[in-house]
Amino acid sequence: MAEHTVIMETTLRKLLGEKKYSTLRDILVTMNPADIAAIFDEMEEDRLPLLYRLLPKELAADVFVEMDQEAQELLIRGFSDSELKEVIDELFVDDAVDIVEEMPANVVRRILSQADPEMRKSINEILRYPEYSAGSIMTTEYISLRPKMTVAEAITRIRRTGIDKETIYTCYVTKDRTLIGVCTVKDLLLCEDDEQTIESIMHTNVISVSTHDDQEEVAQMFSKYNFMALPVVDAESRLVGIITFDDAMDVMEEEATEDIEKMAAIIPSEKPYMSMSPFEIWKNRIPWLLLLMVSATFTGMIISHFEDALQALVVLTAFIPMLMDTAGNSGSQASVTVIRGLSLNELDFSDIFQIIWKEVRVAVLCGLTLAAACFLKIYLVDNLLLHSFVGVDRKFLVIGVICITLSITVLFAKVVGCVLPLVAKKLGFDPAVMASPFITTIVDALSLLVYFGVARLFLQI
Amino acid sequence: MAEHTVIMETTLRKLLGEKKYSTLRDILVTMNPADIAAIFDEMEEDRLPLLYRLLPKELAADVFVEMDQEAQELLIRGFSDSELKEVIDELFVDDAVDIVEEMPANVVRRILSQADPEMRKSINEILRYPEYSAGSIMTTEYISLRPKMTVAEAITRIRRTGIDKETIYTCYVTKDRTLIGVCTVKDLLLCEDDEQTIESIMHTNVISVSTHDDQEEVAQMFSKYNFMALPVVDAESRLVGIITFDDAMDVMEEEATEDIEKMAAIIPSEKPYMSMSPFEIWKNRIPWLLLLMVSATFTGMIISHFEDALQALVVLTAFIPMLMDTAGNSGSQASVTVIRGLSLNELDFSDIFQIIWKEVRVAVLCGLTLAAACFLKIYLVDNLLLHSFVGVDRKFLVIGVICITLSITVLFAKVVGCVLPLVAKKLGFDPAVMASPFITTIVDALSLLVYFGVARLFLQI
Repeated sequence: MAEHTVIMETTLRKLLGEKKYSTLRDILVTMNPADIAAIFDEMEEDRLPLLYRLLPKELAADVFVEMDQEAQELLIRGFSDSELKEVIDELFVDDAVDIVEEMPANVVRRILSQADPEMRKSINEILRYPEYSAGSIMTTEYISLRPKMTVAEAITRIRRTGIDKETIYTCYVTKDRTLIGVCTVKDLLLCEDDEQTIESIMHTNVISVSTHDDQEEVAQMFSKYNFMALPVVDAESRLVGIITFDDAMDVMEEEATEDIEKMAAIIPSEKPYMSMSPFEIWKNRIPWLLLLMVSATFTGMIISHFEDALQALVVLTAFIPMLMDTAGNSGSQASVTVIRGLSLNELDFSDIFQIIWKEVRVAVLCGLTLAAACFLKIYLVDNLLLHSFVGVDRKFLVIGVICITLSITVLFAKVVGCVLPLVAKKLGFDPAVMASPFITTIVDALSLLVYFGVARLFLQI
Repeated sequence: MAEHTVIMETTLRKLLGEKKYSTLRDILVTMNPADIAAIFDEMEEDRLPLLYRLLPKELAADVFVEMDQEAQELLIRGFSDSELKEVIDELFVDDAVDIVEEMPANVVRRILSQADPEMRKSINEILRYPEYSAGSIMTTEYISLRPKMTVAEAITRIRRTGIDKETIYTCYVTKDRTLIGVCTVKDLLLCEDDEQTIESIMHTNVISVSTHDDQEEVAQMFSKYNFMALPVVDAESRLVGIITFDDAMDVMEEEATEDIEKMAAIIPSEKPYMSMSPFEIWKNRIPWLLLLMVSATFTGMIISHFEDALQALVVLTAFIPMLMDTAGNSGSQASVTVIRGLSLNELDFSDIFQIIWKEVRVAVLCGLTLAAACFLKIYLVDNLLLHSFVGVDRKFLVIGVICITLSITVLFAKVVGCVLPLVAKKLGFDPAVMASPFITTIVDALSLLVYFGVARLFLQI
């Protein structure tokens, strides 16, 4: 929690203890709903309903939306039917859907029974769209205008119906429910002639998304076009809802978190870390750990296979971790760069040859630098300082084998690292799982094979 | 590039080849600036200026902003002074600053000499703020209202001055240049009495940022409060500019990319991958590779130190990669979770004991599962199938040593993984660098120490 909210929390707790309710209310109404919610989330179960009831109706709904799921559930369970109805009436449809999606079935039934029929219909409609689709994050409350309206009529309509809409600033022009144009409040206000028709000032090159488009694509469109809202149309091009920029921001944040979790071999979860039980966290982490552990069997097999070589020249063993880690790091640099590029639509499978050629050149540069540094380091530190090479024949040749292996594995790692995410994307898998842990496992085996191959070739062991 | 833009590009190229300029213009004016820019970025140097000059003035400026730096530079170099002035006059100040920041000095001088005095002053002012600060991403064009104005007067003012403002929807109420309230166009339009004063309807609990606040914090505030714009004030609480949600979205995307790059041991860069030379990519990747390679000296030292133990029981060597990788993966799961939590302000240093306790419990669950699976896998695969344990005395004890090591290292890895980012944050370093590569290097050494320690204890080697 941010520092200023912590200070505020202390003040509020004190006033609550002293039962200074009117002072409390005076303070709360000056605060932002998100800040109030952050404090309410930390409140004890028995104090929360009391505090919540101090809020004026509209602010109460705004705060309710921002609270975490547990606090919301607690409040709903304590609400009388009429209190519940009051909150629901103030909610925007998309926020109501978010709440319904997270609540247990019996709470959902109560919410739906208290919602007015139109709201209930909208909620049910949105719930029908697949998770993570544009339809599932849209709201059905928007301002629609008719093409033949004048600017003055449009402004009157906005003034009359705007109060319940999530955004009034982008209005949608429809004809027989089909979306034919958009018109912003800025266009309306800056228009010099109030009697012009909407038709004549609207923008007709409307960019819209379909109800079944992935929410990630939708968020990408917001960041590309800088829209405040995007219309959502069904298969027949009929306008069914809008998505506003704040929902797109949430999606962007969620998707970035998801990618980061996948890259770290975690199964993504929407629940915040602090409210997950150790068992839930275990469930998200153990599958990849098990899979990657079992795949490490290959590296073990390779080492067992070359046991004799290792016994003949034990000093080689000491450099296995360094070779594996450096190759793993090189590979994950390439894979993560490509994965992020794919997420942001900056890269595409068709760029594969350009990417490989770029990575090959980077790998040669990195490989040479690392080999040179490795040679110096082994000669100065391991040899002169730590005496690791005492009694080793053909010392420089052995060091050479290590450095040559390093360059070759860096090259392999970079190529594998950039190719795998691209291929995964092409095959319809999520490229993000082709990150460090997965690459490391493959590259480990590769580096050992190269190591023992090069050692055989140059040292005849 | 998205598919629909590829198709459009083919059409435009064909029309350009046939010199059908008026058809070209008719098509271009129906398109979105971002889509036009994506196509222009791909155009040949000699065709671009011709195509660009087909655009009407205002659209031309919108497209210019969206193009990549190379294309912008090419166009500016070809512009006459009056053409350059026309483009600059249409730009918003924050976009002009973005362009100036990326151009070489001689181009910047030309831009500034063509900008009108007020624009030049604003550009220079914004350029003075530190990189990545709120001041550096703000724009100085916003609508300010006076507290004594009536709603009707305010609307008139917006209609008169709105055309040059990036957003007209949030207006700022100032008194002697100090920010005292905000008022949205929605408030103004939905207000029933046009003669009410701004003072009486404005919101006074204004949330603002300071010019020197970090842009990441600013983006977090947008995602927390769902604002469309945020006012920026100087040390004396005077309003100096605003930041709009689209800039906050760009920052969110940038910061997520930066975190992901740091987690993969890459020095972040703002340049897109495809326009970086192999040498530039090498520069961003080699420092961490070198550092991590050198730190792997410790793992090498540990292995050398226990050379005799390994020679006494060579089968132990084959499990080193598996132990190191599993520990590394466990550690990076914990570290990445904490790093992301810190980035999103969901976690804080004060939560450290709760986090450690949670990770300890997760580690025990993961450690036990992994040890059990590992025991089965080694017994069935390595022992019965691959005969890796032929001739090994006390077979079950050796397998036991491997599984015990696994549980202990998972515990260490999870604790180190969650603590290091928190400590880094507390000490003022960037927690994101405490991710996989760094954790892996530490955890590698730890797992080897545990491995040989446990082996010594149980096997007396």
